[in-house]
Amino acid sequence: MKTLKEYARDVEVALDKRLPEVGETRLGDMPVDLNRAMRYSLLAGGKRLRPSMLLAAVDMLGGDPQSAMPLACAVEMIHTYSLIHDDLPGMDGDVLRRGRPTNHVVFGEGQAILAGDGLLSEAFEGMLKSALAHPEQLAAVYEIARGAGARGMVAGQSLDLACERSREGGEKELVYIHENKTACMFVYPLRAAGRLCGADEQALEALGAYGRAFGHMFQVADDLLDVVGDAGALGKSVGKDASEGKLTATSVYGLDGARAQVDAFLAEGLHALRIFGDRAAFFESLIRDMRGRRS
Amino acid sequence: MKTLKEYARDVEVALDKRLPEVGETRLGDMPVDLNRAMRYSLLAGGKRLRPSMLLAAVDMLGGDPQSAMPLACAVEMIHTYSLIHDDLPGMDGDVLRRGRPTNHVVFGEGQAILAGDGLLSEAFEGMLKSALAHPEQLAAVYEIARGAGARGMVAGQSLDLACERSREGGEKELVYIHENKTACMFVYPLRAAGRLCGADEQALEALGAYGRAFGHMFQVADDLLDVVGDAGALGKSVGKDASEGKLTATSVYGLDGARAQVDAFLAEGLHALRIFGDRAAFFESLIRDMRGRRS
Repeated sequence: MKTLKEYARDVEVALDKRLPEVGETRLGDMPVDLNRAMRYSLLAGGKRLRPSMLLAAVDMLGGDPQSAMPLACAVEMIHTYSLIHDDLPGMDGDVLRRGRPTNHVVFGEGQAILAGDGLLSEAFEGMLKSALAHPEQLAAVYEIARGAGARGMVAGQSLDLACERSREGGEKELVYIHENKTACMFVYPLRAAGRLCGADEQALEALGAYGRAFGHMFQVADDLLDVVGDAGALGKSVGKDASEGKLTATSVYGLDGARAQVDAFLAEGLHALRIFGDRAAFFESLIRDMRGRRS
Repeated sequence: MKTLKEYARDVEVALDKRLPEVGETRLGDMPVDLNRAMRYSLLAGGKRLRPSMLLAAVDMLGGDPQSAMPLACAVEMIHTYSLIHDDLPGMDGDVLRRGRPTNHVVFGEGQAILAGDGLLSEAFEGMLKSALAHPEQLAAVYEIARGAGARGMVAGQSLDLACERSREGGEKELVYIHENKTACMFVYPLRAAGRLCGADEQALEALGAYGRAFGHMFQVADDLLDVVGDAGALGKSVGKDASEGKLTATSVYGLDGARAQVDAFLAEGLHALRIFGDRAAFFESLIRDMRGRRS
């Protein structure tokens, strides 16, 4: 088993090859504006958490991470497209991400919309190309489509936006948003890893349960960080509420309630791993590290 | 063989079933806002040209149009998502389409972006579900991904936008835009029909050549209509140039040049059909009708 950083480095190398080099002419394989805008966000760093988890799950289940790489890249492309569209003025209107100007600030709104569309399309095109050579991957590709889709990630984004605009919504809405917007892109890539390795129903369920717990914990911890800041995410100090008026884990559960949720999801995630025994060491460390993260 | 209207009616029925009914609760299979926005544009009528042509090609090649329906629906969903995103303020900024307010005017920019993302995702999810039951469809699904993607339709949209913003570009750019933005979504769905029927390379080439000629003719005729209006698209009268300053077939070729292009593409399309003999009657009429259309 590799470390998260090692998987992330592998993903980084593969992603760089997934899109053409920015050419001299506008009329190459992709127009230069589209190519630049897609590369700008796709190769902007980040933890590469989702594709790395997919590869680690394939490793855990005794599969071949190299042949899973096209699916891992697709997962990161889907995640990236969702960030580009999320940042648009019509959505969150963010101008900075990871310390850099967001895609639409650099390339304009139109090219940013198309860069997102291009990444989503390219994600599927790449997975389908891989599945043409390895038809046994088809069930895994479908899992990823399910997680990313209008009954998955996009559904969560839509309800999130609706609640933000209407300033309505309670716990039920919050759980739906976290489940779909955040957890789906952990649940389904992990299930995809299971499909790639011919895992049985019990293992698929366990992978999904871990992904669900991980995703919810991740999102609640994120909401906590927005409130208490870097210094003491899960500790005692309370900072400025950056998300005032927004539907978040802290607005619904309060600080202590949200912290209790984090611990409950941690326990749930660890519990789901039990059927994998020692082989799950990567995922056990990962969810513990994420519980303790300060940024 | 059915008529275009009959195929379109079949598509209409199938599309209506592709998305859930708008539910009572926000937290159903899809959030109600997303569901409404997706249905609003998908079920807004239109000629259903692309999916009908896919079904007609399957018929022509002796395949089963019913089993091709998930792919036909996906083609229309992809076409619809591209229109929703094209109409956004960050792109063309159109407020009316087919006489109705555009998606973002009704549902807001954010939900319109997500409705587009949802339709594109749902298109792939539906095709993958179909391919899981019929793995022999995989090559056809890949063709559609190729046509819709960042080296296809999205590439054309990106260059179109770049040329519009920079007010630059000549014939080379125009041909690239028409080829990718418009023709790709005829070429690749027709090739997909060929794949579904196990067509040989020669038939795939012919389907693609027809789709390419059809797409270019369609777009040049569209540019002509923008200039000369309904009354005499391909006749003599010249109206107000609605597209002044834009890169179009008439700005590049002039009116007479553009008319000559239409005729050349018509001839090219008819030529491509020859290998199919009498079986190509549907496609022969279709391209002739499109040549003569006045709206």
